[in-house]
Amino acid sequence: MQLKARLLNIQAGGRRIAILDDETASYLAAHSSDRVKITHKNESLIAILNVASDFPPNYIGLYEEISAKLRIGDEESVEVEPAEAPEALRHIQAKIRGERLRQNEIEAIVRDVVERHLSDIELASLVTALFVNGLSMDEIEALSKAMVKTGKTLNLKNGPILDKHSVGGVPGDKTSMLVVPIVAAAGFTIPKTSSRAVTSSSGTADRVEVLCPVNLTIDEIKEVVSKTNGCMVWGGALELAPADDLFIQVEYPLAIDPLLLPSIMSKKKAIGATHVVIDIPTGRGAKIKTIGEAQDLANDFIDLGKRLGIKVNCAVSFGEQPIGNAVGPALEAREALSAVMGNGPFDLIEKATSIAGMLFELVGVENGKQKAQDMMKSGKAERKLREIIEAQGGDPKVKPEDIKIGDKKAETVADQDGVILWINNEDIARIAKEAGAPKEKGAGVLLKAKLGGRLRKGETMFEIYAERYTKLEAAIELANKLKPIGLGGKPEERMIIERIPTQIEHRKAFMLER
Amino acid sequence: MQLKARLLNIQAGGRRIAILDDETASYLAAHSSDRVKITHKNESLIAILNVASDFPPNYIGLYEEISAKLRIGDEESVEVEPAEAPEALRHIQAKIRGERLRQNEIEAIVRDVVERHLSDIELASLVTALFVNGLSMDEIEALSKAMVKTGKTLNLKNGPILDKHSVGGVPGDKTSMLVVPIVAAAGFTIPKTSSRAVTSSSGTADRVEVLCPVNLTIDEIKEVVSKTNGCMVWGGALELAPADDLFIQVEYPLAIDPLLLPSIMSKKKAIGATHVVIDIPTGRGAKIKTIGEAQDLANDFIDLGKRLGIKVNCAVSFGEQPIGNAVGPALEAREALSAVMGNGPFDLIEKATSIAGMLFELVGVENGKQKAQDMMKSGKAERKLREIIEAQGGDPKVKPEDIKIGDKKAETVADQDGVILWINNEDIARIAKEAGAPKEKGAGVLLKAKLGGRLRKGETMFEIYAERYTKLEAAIELANKLKPIGLGGKPEERMIIERIPTQIEHRKAFMLER
Repeated sequence: MQLKARLLNIQAGGRRIAILDDETASYLAAHSSDRVKITHKNESLIAILNVASDFPPNYIGLYEEISAKLRIGDEESVEVEPAEAPEALRHIQAKIRGERLRQNEIEAIVRDVVERHLSDIELASLVTALFVNGLSMDEIEALSKAMVKTGKTLNLKNGPILDKHSVGGVPGDKTSMLVVPIVAAAGFTIPKTSSRAVTSSSGTADRVEVLCPVNLTIDEIKEVVSKTNGCMVWGGALELAPADDLFIQVEYPLAIDPLLLPSIMSKKKAIGATHVVIDIPTGRGAKIKTIGEAQDLANDFIDLGKRLGIKVNCAVSFGEQPIGNAVGPALEAREALSAVMGNGPFDLIEKATSIAGMLFELVGVENGKQKAQDMMKSGKAERKLREIIEAQGGDPKVKPEDIKIGDKKAETVADQDGVILWINNEDIARIAKEAGAPKEKGAGVLLKAKLGGRLRKGETMFEIYAERYTKLEAAIELANKLKPIGLGGKPEERMIIERIPTQIEHRKAFMLER
Repeated sequence: MQLKARLLNIQAGGRRIAILDDETASYLAAHSSDRVKITHKNESLIAILNVASDFPPNYIGLYEEISAKLRIGDEESVEVEPAEAPEALRHIQAKIRGERLRQNEIEAIVRDVVERHLSDIELASLVTALFVNGLSMDEIEALSKAMVKTGKTLNLKNGPILDKHSVGGVPGDKTSMLVVPIVAAAGFTIPKTSSRAVTSSSGTADRVEVLCPVNLTIDEIKEVVSKTNGCMVWGGALELAPADDLFIQVEYPLAIDPLLLPSIMSKKKAIGATHVVIDIPTGRGAKIKTIGEAQDLANDFIDLGKRLGIKVNCAVSFGEQPIGNAVGPALEAREALSAVMGNGPFDLIEKATSIAGMLFELVGVENGKQKAQDMMKSGKAERKLREIIEAQGGDPKVKPEDIKIGDKKAETVADQDGVILWINNEDIARIAKEAGAPKEKGAGVLLKAKLGGRLRKGETMFEIYAERYTKLEAAIELANKLKPIGLGGKPEERMIIERIPTQIEHRKAFMLER
């Protein structure tokens, strides 16, 4: 039927959404979520219909995604007719019913996701069904490949391309900022893309951005890598696996993460990685809680790697406390830079050289860890880091003390003599976020002692940094409430880790990091 | 933080949605789907956040649900701060993880659904998780009660209140239009509320509307029932269990129906029903395919009835072909009126008197079916139907031939001598819908023979009625393609019921009727 266009002059987040009133919709025998074909001057597209009770009859409301694409002006006439639902919907319905999906069906889903043919309802149902019914390794493989196929790829020269990735969940994990220069200094290619924080206090892209720009184009990345063998850039705008960004938008509010494997591995495949180490931090306060769980996940990564032509090793790492002492973008950048210069916390250097060593051994280098340590001690890693910083547009001469951290500061002291028995990762991250991280880069938490560390009453347990007093005060208040560090003579003197009040406060412990 | 309001001047389907650009959102550490508290002149509300890349910074985009509620003008200043997610979200996440929900958790979910605190993503995930993980009878009971509690109720006088309901799925089922007058004529109270078609060719409300208005208020319903003992009204605008209308909006695109039991029974409870017969049409082309499935469902209805204080009996009825011959609102209204007047198809009268008889026996009347037949034969049912039509504002003297049916007509003839071996319910409904039903009330299909009926080559199998030639032609084309009726000498001569081509065309066989 012919309808008049009413332009809404606002975007619908990339979706093609059109609005009809009840009466007009019922003439088309169409309901909310049905599809309609909109034609204007011989050009057509399929839109998702929203039926509204207050909309004027004989009008069709068009979000900008539609009016711009079809170049429709306000009050112009368009032809509207019912259309078939996208193919993906049938396969989503099959997955809801517990069926296994074939490769071509998964391809159809990913294609419709990327082309924005699915509504939030359909996408949320898909992600929920994937979580509840699970995915077979065949489905995971097909999803990974489809996610690569529908995105851009980084086509570097031949030869091994190394990469590492952490499944995340531990605050302060700046390991990549050491691994990349170590590996690149040894002459291997490591084009590292990272994410910004979604639910955490800092992502690797947030940390690196303190030292140099991270928002590079694919061509710029190629240039940096050809100069330095490595890079540390933000992967978010590269469209390496654009389906994943859309999946994340529904996974985040639901706090489920069924696409962890294809999400990570599709991005590795898209940058052309041939040898990858996956770090799986494991511990009560980490994303992965037990060694058994970590081993299962590691096996899946290795299996999926084989199917994608990527040699994968996994490191199940100690995740019961933050890595190093610093949590928050600038504090972490400063700590990472110091560490590369030979003055860093032992656990960070141990972890970084172990993972770099595993990468070396993956490509046939013997005594990989020794080689990694050599790169550090010889100063080659530091020089390489500075080369990369310069190539990405930062100051290669930057000193740790140049890095600006929040000038508002508070400290939490030990209320007794004792040893640190536990550190609650999630609480530390929450305090850093309350202080302003990751948006306010100078905000964060600096631990003055780690597990097993001995403190006297009145000595500082951790410092909170912020850029604004209001944030600092909020973070102090939260720290006093959460008491994120357990201090005692020995574990048996402090058996209660948490007190659950009558009503548990709702808080989001979900860690979405990729 | 203080932001300026940008009014969008459009509704968001009842949801409270606000828009921020990336940068502004990241200052609030808020992502799409997070909640924000919006305050304007000492009044606040919680909104669902959408983050848009193209939105002007330092503005907050407000759909009408928010600007109207808080009386915010364009460019006015509002205070915006992060807010907690609604309580329901935590319980939805628990259900996704496969946990059983407690009564207070289910109440929190239904409350947040009705108050429109949940996004489409959250609602779709809930419905999917309920479908995949299933519901315990305790959960079903809690859902039913919560759905009643959050809606309006029809408080009639004391004494038994009777009702019937079909789980649907069979076209042409106008049984209620006979059961209501039969039961009311015997002096019992039966305040029947019905739905309009969602996916079918006609709902009871669509059929009755041909004879009289069905969009009555609760007070008008009370008046009609006090005059006549019965009514046949549209339940959709009464807000009897408003949560259900919101669930339906996500169940429909997903083609899943996990809330069938609480949906139906909450509405029965809300009208105060004490004795209910649930009709479960069963057959290959019906919603419920096998007798075993029907029996399980019947047991659940009876169990749930006990928990809600409603005495329930179930009728597993023959659902392998349409009820009567007419499919489509006006054709069905005409057939129902003829039937009440003593001139109707045998299967319709048999079904209606059986169900009315079951209701009579539920309240202690012996030989219920006999009593139902007596109401028909004595003309009391017809007089009662006319009373109800008059009380609802229709013409009590209406004759079947007064009812206007589509004046464009086509017929499909038998291509051989034979017996009708099968009738595809779904195909018949699709043809009726293609002809214009339910929106165009005169459109539909009239079967000239039913299962076992004998036809000679060239005799009419069914007629198609439409109000417009274009619709008639589309329906004829579809009928020729679908061949909805199987004709043969005996079943073994026509063993192939359907041919599946290489690529199965996507069609929506889901039946959402409540």
